[in-house]
Amino acid sequence: MGDPSGIGPEITLKAWKKLRTSPEYSFALIATEQALTSALKDHTEIDVKCFSEYSPQSISDVFSDALPIIRLPNHVQAPCIDITPGHPDAAHAQSIIKSIEHGVDLVTSGEADALVTNPISKDVLYKSGFTHPGHTEFLGALTEHATGPYADPSLRGPIMMLSGGGLRVALATVHIPLKRVVSELTQEKIINTARVMNAALKTDFGIARPRIAFAGLNPHAGENGALGPEEIDIINPAAHLLRSEGLDVTDAQPADTLFHTEAREGYDAVLAMYHDQGLIPVKTLDFHGGVNITLGLPIIRTSPDHGTAFNIAGQNIARPDSLIAAIKTAREIADNRLKYAG
Amino acid sequence: MGDPSGIGPEITLKAWKKLRTSPEYSFALIATEQALTSALKDHTEIDVKCFSEYSPQSISDVFSDALPIIRLPNHVQAPCIDITPGHPDAAHAQSIIKSIEHGVDLVTSGEADALVTNPISKDVLYKSGFTHPGHTEFLGALTEHATGPYADPSLRGPIMMLSGGGLRVALATVHIPLKRVVSELTQEKIINTARVMNAALKTDFGIARPRIAFAGLNPHAGENGALGPEEIDIINPAAHLLRSEGLDVTDAQPADTLFHTEAREGYDAVLAMYHDQGLIPVKTLDFHGGVNITLGLPIIRTSPDHGTAFNIAGQNIARPDSLIAAIKTAREIADNRLKYAG
Repeated sequence: MGDPSGIGPEITLKAWKKLRTSPEYSFALIATEQALTSALKDHTEIDVKCFSEYSPQSISDVFSDALPIIRLPNHVQAPCIDITPGHPDAAHAQSIIKSIEHGVDLVTSGEADALVTNPISKDVLYKSGFTHPGHTEFLGALTEHATGPYADPSLRGPIMMLSGGGLRVALATVHIPLKRVVSELTQEKIINTARVMNAALKTDFGIARPRIAFAGLNPHAGENGALGPEEIDIINPAAHLLRSEGLDVTDAQPADTLFHTEAREGYDAVLAMYHDQGLIPVKTLDFHGGVNITLGLPIIRTSPDHGTAFNIAGQNIARPDSLIAAIKTAREIADNRLKYAG
Repeated sequence: MGDPSGIGPEITLKAWKKLRTSPEYSFALIATEQALTSALKDHTEIDVKCFSEYSPQSISDVFSDALPIIRLPNHVQAPCIDITPGHPDAAHAQSIIKSIEHGVDLVTSGEADALVTNPISKDVLYKSGFTHPGHTEFLGALTEHATGPYADPSLRGPIMMLSGGGLRVALATVHIPLKRVVSELTQEKIINTARVMNAALKTDFGIARPRIAFAGLNPHAGENGALGPEEIDIINPAAHLLRSEGLDVTDAQPADTLFHTEAREGYDAVLAMYHDQGLIPVKTLDFHGGVNITLGLPIIRTSPDHGTAFNIAGQNIARPDSLIAAIKTAREIADNRLKYAG
């Protein structure tokens, strides 16, 4: 459900309206009674059908007529604290966390095919003692001991990949200050990220021999060292080692000329060295329909690539495009893993 | 002429073929006899008309029939060293530098309206004792004592702006390693860059009240300090001061959501904090037609936003789109300065 004060519940209802006639995208919303009541206030036209247990068959059966809800137990609610759109409250942290944990359980057990997470606000969770740097890292911890295609520690994420505008970009470093990017960028990190990308592009996207382009860190990819040493000292040696393992990866390429239409034909995914380097091109090309995909988890997990958008919550103007794309991508990956994860 | 071993001469001939029937874009190529001979080898269908002196009238008169050439004196040639496309040679450095200096002279004196420069290779010039960090800085030095609209030291560049894909982006820091961006980013630099941008958007682009968006340095523009302090300590205080001077500038905005179609409607230009942050969106949106514009010079100067492309020089496959856009932009700025620089 994500943060119930954000746009998550609203875009979920909108996504269901759009997808209800496509049974292959059947999904259920994991939420508390309280979050559900709040979300439905502006959408009385929507029927819901509550289940206390997840059952793929029951969900498929009702999906075209009603939004299936997996109800979280009442004791995780904060019944005396109203949910006010746009006004997050740490009182709801427990139910937010519980909905994630329950989703992970359902996918780990094999009852559900994939987990799609609505946006959360780290501020809200931190106030209630949550200690993970973010959603993705929390999912990494929850699935640490799970078995499955990515149980192999050498191919274990979580790695954040963004998809949109005909582009897939994974990140070597994610939510850290720009100042720390250079010190945290190691050969080991690049090698691990590229190995996970390579495996995921095969099993999750059905690409037999993934072509991965490495972005440079510095302007013009360092111009042979004149504009920075990291391409020569870190990125290219990592690429060299990966090629010796049989991966199809490039040396560091100038990032500014790596993302235009013709350049995109030369690879299946880019490994970007830092957050904005990867997210600027994806969100410039496709602001509404980008998807955040977590690579290297035993479970399949996608999410919209936007935040809680508290500033527009409750106004019924949020667009569900990114959530719908996340649901469709989750389905596509689930189908591919059946075919390719052997 | 730029580096005669690069694609500059070839794209100049192609640009002339495209523009010869548009008298408003009349231009002359400043080149040595040697560079010209090399360029014409594959283009015997093109007529040229050489002048030893620049005369706007003579150039306009011949432009539809022949490419006007301003011939550099023979003594700056390196007659015993052939020009080989794709194989730059420091022996040609003197003629490359002389062609820039002569272009600056012609615009400073008012004989020509604007200077459009073809790409050069800094490596080649460094080997012959050139000490400026780049083309743009060299132009800054050459025009240091010139008078004109940007003679005011508080509005003096050079500031690098890229234009393409409906986007204008100026850079607070340019060709430096990513590691040095944080230490070189000062309030003073941001304030100076924004003042020059503001003045240039008025006089060069005819925008009465320019709206300038500031990009954040860190992911999510620092997320209130959690992902880096520079937005709070450097960028936003600079923006505050500029607003007190009457400029329409924003606080630091998350860079990944700043460049998509709808976001672009909210400003006339973006101030990016470092090279790739500004160049990735421009070149992703418009790889072939981007233009590099130098703001805050007494003379008007534009250039293609690509390099010498030695790897494809002499193959007759280089596209002149960016050079043509640079010529058209130079004309547009010259017309605007007449109207708005009062």
